[in-house]
Amino acid sequence: MANKVTPISGFPEWLPRQRIVEQHFLDVIREVFELHGFASINTRAVEPVDRLSNQGEDADKEIYAVRRLGGDDDTNLPTLGLHFDLTVPFSRYVVENAARLTFPFRRYQIQPVWRGERPQRGRYREFIQADIDIVEADVLPDHYEVEIPLVIADVFSRLPVGPYTIQVNNRKICEGFYRGLGIQDVAATLRTVDKLDKIGANGVRTVLLAAGLMEDQVSQCLALAAISTPDSTFVAQVRALGVEHPVLEEGLEQLAAIMDAGAEHAPGVFCATLKIARGLDYYTGTVYETVLQGREDFGSVCSGGRYDTLATDGKRTFPGVGISIGVSRLLGLLVGDGGLTASRETPVTVLVALAEESSRAGSMRIAAALRSRGISTLVAPKAAKFGKQIQFADRRGIPFVWFPGTGHPEGGNDQVKDLRSGEQATADCDAWMPPSDDLRPQLHSQ
Amino acid sequence: MANKVTPISGFPEWLPRQRIVEQHFLDVIREVFELHGFASINTRAVEPVDRLSNQGEDADKEIYAVRRLGGDDDTNLPTLGLHFDLTVPFSRYVVENAARLTFPFRRYQIQPVWRGERPQRGRYREFIQADIDIVEADVLPDHYEVEIPLVIADVFSRLPVGPYTIQVNNRKICEGFYRGLGIQDVAATLRTVDKLDKIGANGVRTVLLAAGLMEDQVSQCLALAAISTPDSTFVAQVRALGVEHPVLEEGLEQLAAIMDAGAEHAPGVFCATLKIARGLDYYTGTVYETVLQGREDFGSVCSGGRYDTLATDGKRTFPGVGISIGVSRLLGLLVGDGGLTASRETPVTVLVALAEESSRAGSMRIAAALRSRGISTLVAPKAAKFGKQIQFADRRGIPFVWFPGTGHPEGGNDQVKDLRSGEQATADCDAWMPPSDDLRPQLHSQ
Repeated sequence: MANKVTPISGFPEWLPRQRIVEQHFLDVIREVFELHGFASINTRAVEPVDRLSNQGEDADKEIYAVRRLGGDDDTNLPTLGLHFDLTVPFSRYVVENAARLTFPFRRYQIQPVWRGERPQRGRYREFIQADIDIVEADVLPDHYEVEIPLVIADVFSRLPVGPYTIQVNNRKICEGFYRGLGIQDVAATLRTVDKLDKIGANGVRTVLLAAGLMEDQVSQCLALAAISTPDSTFVAQVRALGVEHPVLEEGLEQLAAIMDAGAEHAPGVFCATLKIARGLDYYTGTVYETVLQGREDFGSVCSGGRYDTLATDGKRTFPGVGISIGVSRLLGLLVGDGGLTASRETPVTVLVALAEESSRAGSMRIAAALRSRGISTLVAPKAAKFGKQIQFADRRGIPFVWFPGTGHPEGGNDQVKDLRSGEQATADCDAWMPPSDDLRPQLHSQ
Repeated sequence: MANKVTPISGFPEWLPRQRIVEQHFLDVIREVFELHGFASINTRAVEPVDRLSNQGEDADKEIYAVRRLGGDDDTNLPTLGLHFDLTVPFSRYVVENAARLTFPFRRYQIQPVWRGERPQRGRYREFIQADIDIVEADVLPDHYEVEIPLVIADVFSRLPVGPYTIQVNNRKICEGFYRGLGIQDVAATLRTVDKLDKIGANGVRTVLLAAGLMEDQVSQCLALAAISTPDSTFVAQVRALGVEHPVLEEGLEQLAAIMDAGAEHAPGVFCATLKIARGLDYYTGTVYETVLQGREDFGSVCSGGRYDTLATDGKRTFPGVGISIGVSRLLGLLVGDGGLTASRETPVTVLVALAEESSRAGSMRIAAALRSRGISTLVAPKAAKFGKQIQFADRRGIPFVWFPGTGHPEGGNDQVKDLRSGEQATADCDAWMPPSDDLRPQLHSQ
């Protein structure tokens, strides 16, 4: 096999120790999603390109097309592309299987996605997303918009991500406010305000004025976008701006309900942040963005919102609300930059030493006994002095070395040595258990 | 979004209930791989096409090439293709990271792979494989060839696959035997014998005679291939054929060691099957194929072997031994045909009922309390008569419905109802636990 190998930009891969961190994150995410009653689905990696490319004007250049190198014998097949998110395949899956799903359908999906973007800090060409969505047929009650960020708070509270904020807004607040101000093109205004962090208040002002808005309309838009409260006090602040519209009222009430639930179930985590708009046109209610405190510059690591039309099969429409954790982005920050790592590079808890090759069968028996109680165990690769075998375990972060009684220098019963404390004790392979924390690698920051 | 959707042949997707079966299989596979000390890695989905396509003459037509639909701005990038197995990316990963890995490197890898083959029964274009390999730098001891099939036996013993057989052979037996017979082209002879199940003994005879072998050489090859014993008695049967060669002796000894270990750790599972050759040229020692008893026609669901050169970086060579479980193939058989299914279509163990929308906050508190003890819980989507809510749970296979004390028809404390037995009892959401089997969906055959 050719021996020249170079990484491919934008397609990150982890070493085993880093992968253990990734696995821990994926396990926690899955566990919490399931605790909250989301069912797993996986969709195929490919969709017809025409389904992918009608998702917005800029979508085309992000898509990786896929074709058989040897040419396609089946010309009836549509041109295929790799999915660039999990929402497009999910909406197709819902329509395709609507008759066999029970609604409201709560699904989670943890899979890689691919985007042909120019790779840069925190932006990859292949990366893992972890999505939850709740989809109904025809009508979706508002209470799901309250529930979704509570699930995320439950996930993040169990991960070593440091302090974080789930910023929440409701499109209806912006829409009602803009309409109350007499602004015609609500969508364009939203998209401009969404660029606040990138181009600043003056930049937004310039664009909105150029689009034909009045000075006072622009000032009011910027005043609304400046409101950010960790509780429901945003309601009074918005009302103080003196704009009235029934859609605005609806949005205020819905966002207040989210802030109240956050105060009870995830205190200190939610922030009503009225500048959050999310670029995508399809959101129609609550929108979410999640930032790590002190790393706001990195952007959102978990975003989503409510959409009134995820999909339609011509007869029925499927509204929903969902959110997506950018797992690879998050790990790029925490592992790549932050030095988050695992206590060992292998799942192995115990290395069974081997005094001589002829005693391998005995060591294999010990290993089988330990494994039967859920203890990850490895028999030493070759017979060697015990010092060498301790070194072998130590280099990999394996916490325990097991010395079989036969062949042990001092003779006698089996002994197990904790390499961290140096303590060594007699042990029975049919009964011994390590401390439960040692059953799997632990995460820590370097 | 467009509403016409059709499945894409060869890209299977599961419904939520089937996906639960797949998750169970993947969980068990991972758990056992980790118990045996294999570390997880994931590799990117793409490799340079020239790395993929130098893997054999037929490889080209199997490869899916990948390119940005909008055209590549980065012309330095090689043409990329989706990996068609996990061995090619793993070998590249080993060379790329050799300086940062510790050897022997034991890794497992569970990922989808893609092949542009014509879809047919049990053959998909996108499917999941679960691989383990043990790779050394320079020299790989033989005992790993004993260990690998024991790991697989441990996996399969924990999965509802029915009775199965791990067929084991050693290339050295065939090679030494053929050489002892004076056959020149050992590789071509192996490839022909490997077709025994497809073309029959007469077919093999015809091809080998056409290739220039003598009648008695062919008869001896077929006699060797006919040997199949559930223990080490194959050794005597081979010796009775009267062929001698040092490489043959080496192979017999190694295979006997595997059969002895199998008799101890996985009784009744291994079969020394001397017709097993595995088509791929790179195997140099033990080879494995696994068949489900009664479904031998379906072919192998788990195959692998030893190779002396997985990869080389020009200085070092990396020999290894590995095996790959065809997870999607196996599930296609067991779920698709065999009716293996899950007891529910969701992870949810408890549905918390809702007498009226205004009591949602109380039901959410109960759900949070249950979740904090690892019980997957869902609050009813809307207030309804309790009969309706029981029906909602029943349709999804959710075993328990929780009735909050407030709003309960009889008043009083919270009650929990087991929908299977019909029993209903008073319960405290801060203490109640379901039977542990009810914490997750159970698998059963329909």
